[in-house]
Amino acid sequence: MQFETHCINKRIYYHDTDCGGVVYYANYLKYLEEGRTEYFCNKGVDLRTLSNNNFWFVVKSINVEYKSPVRYQDEIRICTSIDKIGNASIKFHQIITKDDVIVLEANVILVCVGIDFKPSPIPTQIKSSLLK
Amino acid sequence: MQFETHCINKRIYYHDTDCGGVVYYANYLKYLEEGRTEYFCNKGVDLRTLSNNNFWFVVKSINVEYKSPVRYQDEIRICTSIDKIGNASIKFHQIITKDDVIVLEANVILVCVGIDFKPSPIPTQIKSSLLK
Amino acid sequence: MQFETHCINKRIYYHDTDCGGVVYYANYLKYLEEGRTEYFCNKGVDLRTLSNNNFWFVVKSINVEYKSPVRYQDEIRICTSIDKIGNASIKFHQIITKDDVIVLEANVILVCVGIDFKPSPIPTQIKSSLLK
Amino acid sequence: MQFETHCINKRIYYHDTDCGGVVYYANYLKYLEEGRTEYFCNKGVDLRTLSNNNFWFVVKSINVEYKSPVRYQDEIRICTSIDKIGNASIKFHQIITKDDVIVLEANVILVCVGIDFKPSPIPTQIKSSLLK
Repeated sequence: MQFETHCINKRIYYHDTDCGGVVYYANYLKYLEEGRTEYFCNKGVDLRTLSNNNFWFVVKSINVEYKSPVRYQDEIRICTSIDKIGNASIKFHQIITKDDVIVLEANVILVCVGIDFKPSPIPTQIKSSLLK
Repeated sequence: MQFETHCINKRIYYHDTDCGGVVYYANYLKYLEEGRTEYFCNKGVDLRTLSNNNFWFVVKSINVEYKSPVRYQDEIRICTSIDKIGNASIKFHQIITKDDVIVLEANVILVCVGIDFKPSPIPTQIKSSLLK
Repeated sequence: MQFETHCINKRIYYHDTDCGGVVYYANYLKYLEEGRTEYFCNKGVDLRTLSNNNFWFVVKSINVEYKSPVRYQDEIRICTSIDKIGNASIKFHQIITKDDVIVLEANVILVCVGIDFKPSPIPTQIKSSLLK
Repeated sequence: MQFETHCINKRIYYHDTDCGGVVYYANYLKYLEEGRTEYFCNKGVDLRTLSNNNFWFVVKSINVEYKSPVRYQDEIRICTSIDKIGNASIKFHQIITKDDVIVLEANVILVCVGIDFKPSPIPTQIKSSLLK
């Protein structure tokens, strides 16, 4: 199965950078979160409704390769797609670019958990929305 | 009534700074939060217990005067005292210094709220701990 | 003299919130920075060019009144205008709203500084761009 | 060659958490930075001196396995050691625990770069300090 790619754009401000003059390495994880949230939204999956029903997606693992730096007021593009949907987990592949140059590449595994933070099967409705 | 002053020390890391080479102006508000939390702890007030009882202190207003910049790996000192305790609010005065030079001065008003985010009298036990 | 108001919209993600369930009070200062930067851009003032010429605007003081909370996936609007331009300083007035309800109101004074972090007259070209 | 492990402790505040009630996944990368910086300090390596000489360590890749959540006012311990030192890179292994339970495990590769952000051999003096 081939999943769609969904992209968002973002501009870099002072609060994104550090005194090395470039974007701080942890801040990219915020943009990756935004990319995944918009991916879900775009497929009609509302993470608020999910959490009201006591389901959450939490990050199980992340693997990031940093390729080139980003500076103040640069424009970046965050593209998100799904590699694989398991019983309780989703594997995302995300790429950030600036002017078509790769800034970073990330593999992120989310796990669906219940209120006890234990893995729980992804609700069928969510799964079918993502597979649509 | 004269309230005590309680101080904590903190070291500055990359994540605290921005590409201007100094600590980002919003990050100081995190250190001020840490200072107030440690002030409460020091008086025996546990904000977790408070929130388990559906009371929270939220920031109503903040006034910050930035006096001199702070850089990577500087050591700062955050000193917190109370100016006034009202029925549902507490007015804090906080000063951050670096090597005895004033970095910033802040006045922060917290309001005690219930689960509806509406002001609620500060529980008597909390008040008496703070006045001790 | 009457200055224009310039507004931007923003969506709230997990990284904006804290365990109180609402946006963390320091994070609003990031959105206020974004609002001011876009205000400058909109008037043709490029802060990067300014910093390449060894001028920076730094925050001298900030006064924020927090009026109502914002939650995950809310949409907010940050509106920025100028109250007054002095020799070396600019006084901004900023309002954040959510569905026309005021979230917060802020007065922010920026000072133009040189490489020594000492106040320096705002370059004439910048001033005339802002007054246009 | 066996490298030492160096540990620091840290307390969790509101600004570390998100509305899921736990520490936000990107914030752990800040603590990992603090752990590595203190590791360097402990070996007598001052990253400020290094950057004054136009050398920086930048993150090339990061691999994080999140094992269990951390909450407001929890105390965590960040332990850092080195797996391997290459010509221009250092591979760190870092573990965060809470009450002896593993919170996360991370592998982080830093690369030494010059002012052009291109890899550059680690200065001999730094290398010998780390190997001491």
